[in-house]
Amino acid sequence: METELRVRFAETDAQGVVYYAHYFVWFEVARVNFLRTLGFNYSEAEKAGIGFVIAEAYCRYLAPAHFDELIKIKTWVEDIGRSSFTLGYEVINGETDQTLALGKTTQVFLDMKGTRKPIPIPAPVREALEKARDSGGETGGNVEGRAVGKASPH
Amino acid sequence: METELRVRFAETDAQGVVYYAHYFVWFEVARVNFLRTLGFNYSEAEKAGIGFVIAEAYCRYLAPAHFDELIKIKTWVEDIGRSSFTLGYEVINGETDQTLALGKTTQVFLDMKGTRKPIPIPAPVREALEKARDSGGETGGNVEGRAVGKASPH
Amino acid sequence: METELRVRFAETDAQGVVYYAHYFVWFEVARVNFLRTLGFNYSEAEKAGIGFVIAEAYCRYLAPAHFDELIKIKTWVEDIGRSSFTLGYEVINGETDQTLALGKTTQVFLDMKGTRKPIPIPAPVREALEKARDSGGETGGNVEGRAVGKASPH
Amino acid sequence: METELRVRFAETDAQGVVYYAHYFVWFEVARVNFLRTLGFNYSEAEKAGIGFVIAEAYCRYLAPAHFDELIKIKTWVEDIGRSSFTLGYEVINGETDQTLALGKTTQVFLDMKGTRKPIPIPAPVREALEKARDSGGETGGNVEGRAVGKASPH
Repeated sequence: METELRVRFAETDAQGVVYYAHYFVWFEVARVNFLRTLGFNYSEAEKAGIGFVIAEAYCRYLAPAHFDELIKIKTWVEDIGRSSFTLGYEVINGETDQTLALGKTTQVFLDMKGTRKPIPIPAPVREALEKARDSGGETGGNVEGRAVGKASPH
Repeated sequence: METELRVRFAETDAQGVVYYAHYFVWFEVARVNFLRTLGFNYSEAEKAGIGFVIAEAYCRYLAPAHFDELIKIKTWVEDIGRSSFTLGYEVINGETDQTLALGKTTQVFLDMKGTRKPIPIPAPVREALEKARDSGGETGGNVEGRAVGKASPH
Repeated sequence: METELRVRFAETDAQGVVYYAHYFVWFEVARVNFLRTLGFNYSEAEKAGIGFVIAEAYCRYLAPAHFDELIKIKTWVEDIGRSSFTLGYEVINGETDQTLALGKTTQVFLDMKGTRKPIPIPAPVREALEKARDSGGETGGNVEGRAVGKASPH
Repeated sequence: METELRVRFAETDAQGVVYYAHYFVWFEVARVNFLRTLGFNYSEAEKAGIGFVIAEAYCRYLAPAHFDELIKIKTWVEDIGRSSFTLGYEVINGETDQTLALGKTTQVFLDMKGTRKPIPIPAPVREALEKARDSGGETGGNVEGRAVGKASPH
């Protein structure tokens, strides 16, 4: 699953490249797209008092992105837990195909109405995540093995 | 009333200066500070179902700001209506005293619980705004006369 | 000329709507798109030592935007001066066609290499702006007459 | 070394809490403060053609931050390599002393003039980093042992 966007001038900094925190905004854009294709509906979930928050976020920066460049973000399921799931991201220059960054975020489902305690991943979401993980396994797995694995802080 | 902040690297852009939209974030920082000194309490207002939204925002840019510079923002009451009030801002380089930008924002009080229709400015807020306008009048007025007035879009 | 984008979660605030400063980022996205269709090339301009900065920015907010909504931004030429030109923007909910905001920004061409003094709008840019103003006049003019005009701070 | 800031409304999102990417902006504010106390001068470094870029960034989110809360960010030296160094961050609610997030960023020194290849950490910077690591070791070490260690993505 790929998301495309174009670098905004607002996203650059005085080094002439995209500021590092904005990659996490791009991950969000890719994540929302990814979950939409999986059938996840934010408004319905909200009405049902279900939501998720980010528990961990990580990015390794390999090459800079510049204003007006076309960016592609590959997204895949890295891991599925009881309450949480981890997505992986590869940020690519859309013209040269160069990998610019690799990242992941872990989301935890919470009971947003009451306790804000972790709750099991809703069954239809879990099913969709598992299906995405199994069908997209090869690509995701390769990218992870090649890069995000090595990128781990420890 | 003056608010101080230091330019964040995140606020710069590829032209090496602060990106124009961030001045409105600075206005917010100055506005919150200003209203706090007037005794306005955001959490209490929220509990009472009262809030305000921005109806208009304007900025004239005179000279650029750069990473790590000390910034001062003068804030004053420009105008008080029935439901809305307008604040004026002067963004100043804290070391050279040069005026970098002049702006204003108009806020409208709304019934945040129900209709989201405009409501009269709550009496204690109006009183505090009037007091601030009358005591700070000369400075605010001068700055306005000298600059924001001329800065009007047309 | 219309630009489309989808509201990012990063652009919302604790009132549940898009934070007011982000509209100016959207104006930038629309402006870059608009100037691209006019044949303006940022990299070529930069190499030639030519660039523009924002001199004024204004927005009037009419109705809120929410996460994941489709947004359309109409852009037109409001005014052309010697060194500066003004673009107008109408931010529209892409599904309901409701106008959410009206704005304008004034850009000034500068000699970016040396003095950073204003320079005349480069001839091909002026030509393209005039052509856009004349062909798109009716729509832009109507929207302005109806709304941005009344929205002027004074 | 501690940095203080107050949560801006611009930093909140529609869940009513600070958006996850902004923690990396706060890390930057803390990092700039930390390096300033170590004697690092950004402008001098830039003139000398020396600079650093972010190579990795990580954050673990433990509890949310809200508008107008006072935030403290503890910063320490996690690791020093040949060209790179890693800083650790603990984001704390300034009133309750609760830990809200733990993070780290790895910076790599580059020859910014020519090749943009990694270069050894400049001697005075290395010296200052080592001194900070050794003097602040105990606190940093404890926090790391207690928390960032466990926070490793996998």
